[in-house]
Amino acid sequence: MMGLRFTVPALMLFCAVSLQAQTSDEKTLDRIFDETMNNGEAYDNLHVLCKQIGHRLAGSPQADMAVRWSFALLQTYGFDSVWLHPVTVPHWVRGEKEYGEILNVAKVNILALGGSISTPVDGITEEVIEVRDFDHLKELGPEKIKGKIVFFNYPFPQNVVNSFEGYGEAGPYRWHGPSDASAMGAKAVLIRSVGSAHDDFAHTGSTTFASGVPKIPCAALSAIDADLLSATLQGNTNTLFKMILNCKMLDSVQSYNVIAEMRGSQFPNEIIVVGGHLDSWDVGEGAHDDGAGCMQSVEVLRTLKAAGIQPKRTIRCILYMNEENGNMGGKTYGKYAERSKTEKHIAALESDAGGFSPRGFSMDSALLHAANIQPLIKMMEQYGVYQFSEGHGGTDIGPLEKAGTHLIGLVPDSQRYMDLHHTENDVFEQVHIRELHMGAAVMAMMCWYLSEYGVQ
Amino acid sequence: MMGLRFTVPALMLFCAVSLQAQTSDEKTLDRIFDETMNNGEAYDNLHVLCKQIGHRLAGSPQADMAVRWSFALLQTYGFDSVWLHPVTVPHWVRGEKEYGEILNVAKVNILALGGSISTPVDGITEEVIEVRDFDHLKELGPEKIKGKIVFFNYPFPQNVVNSFEGYGEAGPYRWHGPSDASAMGAKAVLIRSVGSAHDDFAHTGSTTFASGVPKIPCAALSAIDADLLSATLQGNTNTLFKMILNCKMLDSVQSYNVIAEMRGSQFPNEIIVVGGHLDSWDVGEGAHDDGAGCMQSVEVLRTLKAAGIQPKRTIRCILYMNEENGNMGGKTYGKYAERSKTEKHIAALESDAGGFSPRGFSMDSALLHAANIQPLIKMMEQYGVYQFSEGHGGTDIGPLEKAGTHLIGLVPDSQRYMDLHHTENDVFEQVHIRELHMGAAVMAMMCWYLSEYGVQ
Repeated sequence: MMGLRFTVPALMLFCAVSLQAQTSDEKTLDRIFDETMNNGEAYDNLHVLCKQIGHRLAGSPQADMAVRWSFALLQTYGFDSVWLHPVTVPHWVRGEKEYGEILNVAKVNILALGGSISTPVDGITEEVIEVRDFDHLKELGPEKIKGKIVFFNYPFPQNVVNSFEGYGEAGPYRWHGPSDASAMGAKAVLIRSVGSAHDDFAHTGSTTFASGVPKIPCAALSAIDADLLSATLQGNTNTLFKMILNCKMLDSVQSYNVIAEMRGSQFPNEIIVVGGHLDSWDVGEGAHDDGAGCMQSVEVLRTLKAAGIQPKRTIRCILYMNEENGNMGGKTYGKYAERSKTEKHIAALESDAGGFSPRGFSMDSALLHAANIQPLIKMMEQYGVYQFSEGHGGTDIGPLEKAGTHLIGLVPDSQRYMDLHHTENDVFEQVHIRELHMGAAVMAMMCWYLSEYGVQ
Repeated sequence: MMGLRFTVPALMLFCAVSLQAQTSDEKTLDRIFDETMNNGEAYDNLHVLCKQIGHRLAGSPQADMAVRWSFALLQTYGFDSVWLHPVTVPHWVRGEKEYGEILNVAKVNILALGGSISTPVDGITEEVIEVRDFDHLKELGPEKIKGKIVFFNYPFPQNVVNSFEGYGEAGPYRWHGPSDASAMGAKAVLIRSVGSAHDDFAHTGSTTFASGVPKIPCAALSAIDADLLSATLQGNTNTLFKMILNCKMLDSVQSYNVIAEMRGSQFPNEIIVVGGHLDSWDVGEGAHDDGAGCMQSVEVLRTLKAAGIQPKRTIRCILYMNEENGNMGGKTYGKYAERSKTEKHIAALESDAGGFSPRGFSMDSALLHAANIQPLIKMMEQYGVYQFSEGHGGTDIGPLEKAGTHLIGLVPDSQRYMDLHHTENDVFEQVHIRELHMGAAVMAMMCWYLSEYGVQ
């Protein structure tokens, strides 16, 4: 793109904008945007979280550090209140050693799924049976599965517009593939990573065993290693795989949601929650998942305070603990909100789909069609935010549904997220300052607007 | 983001989609999308262009290689016609050595602007006068400017939604800052790079001297080095800067636009152009600017052919030469189209704003409001493409306006583009396969739809 391209259109644009009379609400949205984009601190805060603390699975020492550090950070900003909300969390550990080998062919990286048990100390060395999909698993039946290592090799679909659709399609092989295989007598499970990139990164994440089904060792292979294993099996169906995992579930641990708020000037007991989750998987730095959402949520309060915007309703920033493997932070807070006799949680906004360019918001149908949200939807087009749709809010805020809270999810551009999700590659360097801050800015707009007008 | 989030919504989504009866046009758009996303070759082709050829300023040996390689590539795809369209292009060279030093403080990287002349062999060592903006330049006047190195230190604005707006604001300091300073007697010019990132990369790009104004040496500093120079000047206004540039304009060179087409089955003489520019600046790899747009344009034809979609009107892919410093490819082709008695160029689509996630299309007002484009605008929402607005098409296709052609520009997400634009950092690794291919897919949809229905 050469030089003179934008001279005339840009000048025309500036004139057009300056000639239109802005409403007071439009001016407030602009003040929010300018404050976040010019002075935002989410990016620098995320750098500290990622580089000085790093990954932080619930129950880990790093999760504890993240709680202490973010509590102190919120205090330095001087918000109206900052507190810790106790949560009891599970404490799963990966253990010191993971070993995978296509016997006599190649060593490969394996990454235990959260919830996996350990192998015997010497590992499991067993024949591998490759399974295309759940129908194929049924077709093979217990007699062919029993005693084997089941290898689910379902590829991530690329012909999806939003990569979360691909996650919805390939994800079940992680979520309950191991349980299904164990129910048929499998000794262990390997899965092709649930991720959109064809690279060397394995993707971890939770798996759940159905009640009564024996837990078995289970781990993910990168897409490249899954291809290697599949090609090897094509050449020799008797190929053995050796895997060693040392993961285990320890006793539950006391942890915390970290909370701060700006109290509403007119309706302090009506609460707008904005949040993300402070915990991450135990690989990488939890940069997009979900350090980004946490630091954006802090930025919402920082921006409003710095811009001198006093909300009418209380805006409460919650950095939830343990979204990844239990959601105890979300559940515990949800129960509090449900039982509260003094506070009404009218809406909750979560950012947990990455710190990429914001494209819209998903929300419950009632909110999407509420009369007083329509002007905001229209005004947000100015900021490139076009996609308002019915859909998921977020895992942490999900339990607030029982408290009658409207749930909203930030919808960022999704194309890169599933490359990084739950991998060693989800690091600070993957986050772009303008994208992160633009997300925070539109979150602040949403929170301020709801605090100003409520939901009707 | 944990595991089970998308099970229910995803299933509901799939059911909802499958229950709706798709129109024939919707099915065609889906076929296009699936073909590009599942089998697209733009990413692999871009890898060759970036890594085996590299940057390719018009007139350079690499530009010549790019012409030969892309011509051969188009031939291998077996399109109806592939040809070279001769274009005479300027041949500016950077020269073998660039040297910048804040005297007795630090050496800094300087990057000559395209169109700059060389310094004397020993360079220029002179006092620097920092200029905030054009008003400040006027205020200082010729007596303070004369004989000095003028340093335009205008920062890229961050409070813009689209980074091209920021380019529109800061860009003039590159486009005509050197000319304005020279008109007041400046000996040379340094500019703060026109780029959105605060990093060590200097951004080159064209500068133009007004007729009668002496050409002078001019170069860009990275944002970090601009800060260093500014801070140094604050401490010592007599700071000297030494710069050596060896750039020069050589004789014009014969080059080519590289063209291929699928001939329309019903209206072969009605042409839809799709293109980008094959040349790039002489740093980095010209990956986003504009290898991406070229390989997407090739992919449009590849996708339609592979999906067995026969256009009614001719779709012509043009890889333009010399957009960056002369636009001779665009001008030469525009003249051809204007004079053609047999062909009517009804529309032209350009991708030259980066290979990032597609967000919409900008186009002339008549096309934006044409009756038979409205169904496409509606259908494209399914692919996350929401922003249809009046605006610029592209520099290469600009001259087609005189031929009565409707001009359309792909609008990708803009947040990262101005970090990379015209720098050593515009390399293949910055391009994401899904983003690149999604852009190509929606370009193919636009081209096919226009070929099917024309513009009415």
